[in-house]
Amino acid sequence: MTTPETETSPAAGTRDRIVRAAADLLQRQGYEATSIKAISVISGATYGSLYHFFPGGKEELGAAALRFGAEDFSALLRRGLAASNDPGAAFAACAQLLADTLRDSEWTDGCPVAATALEMVGRSPLIQRASDEALSEWRSILAEPLLAAGWDAATAQSLAGTALATLEGAELLARVQSDDQPLRDAAGHLRLLVEAVGASARQHT
Amino acid sequence: MTTPETETSPAAGTRDRIVRAAADLLQRQGYEATSIKAISVISGATYGSLYHFFPGGKEELGAAALRFGAEDFSALLRRGLAASNDPGAAFAACAQLLADTLRDSEWTDGCPVAATALEMVGRSPLIQRASDEALSEWRSILAEPLLAAGWDAATAQSLAGTALATLEGAELLARVQSDDQPLRDAAGHLRLLVEAVGASARQHT
Repeated sequence: MTTPETETSPAAGTRDRIVRAAADLLQRQGYEATSIKAISVISGATYGSLYHFFPGGKEELGAAALRFGAEDFSALLRRGLAASNDPGAAFAACAQLLADTLRDSEWTDGCPVAATALEMVGRSPLIQRASDEALSEWRSILAEPLLAAGWDAATAQSLAGTALATLEGAELLARVQSDDQPLRDAAGHLRLLVEAVGASARQHT
Repeated sequence: MTTPETETSPAAGTRDRIVRAAADLLQRQGYEATSIKAISVISGATYGSLYHFFPGGKEELGAAALRFGAEDFSALLRRGLAASNDPGAAFAACAQLLADTLRDSEWTDGCPVAATALEMVGRSPLIQRASDEALSEWRSILAEPLLAAGWDAATAQSLAGTALATLEGAELLARVQSDDQPLRDAAGHLRLLVEAVGASARQHT
């Protein structure tokens, strides 16, 4: 979590610290292992303060933390995409940036949503909705370079979804193996996939 | 979990029931939410019986359950791959089969390892090793049709890793969205990717 502190009042500062602590724990270990107690200790906020900002408790705070983490990950994807106007090269740059970020954090700073989402599918509508919104937002961000290159919306959204899936899955493999090779392989493959889907779409028009 | 019952003795039957119950819970909700109590209730095994078979407790049982679930998922991948001798069509068939399985189970019967793996990376060497072995086995299975088609080993392993990543990520998206479209999109994209990587490899030899 590297977003700069933007405190406007002591209350906003406390709320921010709570959300950041929760987001960091959700990213590293998922929802169930993350206790209100640990969030309180790490953020330095009392239980009273925590329930003041999040009367719905852990579930409401979890959803807010996923949204916060999602913005962080959106910013990372945008940094990757900024590397090239060519959509294939831009996707490859995202995979490389994810590989670097994961390696530099010793395999902890991965997707801020995946672990929690997989645990809570069908078990918390609030958490599932926040996860769904995050994934949809990232897919839209990945569709942007394709749309800018003149792709039709349906093809762009579909390919952006698969690119996101590939990044998420390669990150799972990389974290479990403690090796960024799956993301580096995915970089080359995403570049080839964009070319192939582009060529196939042109054939069918 | 659809593997047929293969009891050879009452003890083997009890152990099997414990492992199946644990595998089912790990698949649906991950490691932390899965209690020894729930495994005992679902399997009908007493705590004494459970600790008799798994003296290392939940962690040892969790690793055994991941290995059991991994075999089930290996069988599913092999069923998908059997659909075609063409590697691209075979990968697409795997994605379609995963989409059908997920939809038929109302988004619960996904990867038996992903949720637990993401929660426990860096927190349990035993669980991480079992997760790593499962993912490596699936990658090897996906490499088989490429090797059979004459691909060199390095290219086959690398592409099989990305195919597995794409399936895993598309399954995450499908479960969170309660919609199998990401897996159906991945099917078409995997077919194109195999063609593109094959063509690129031929250019470089």
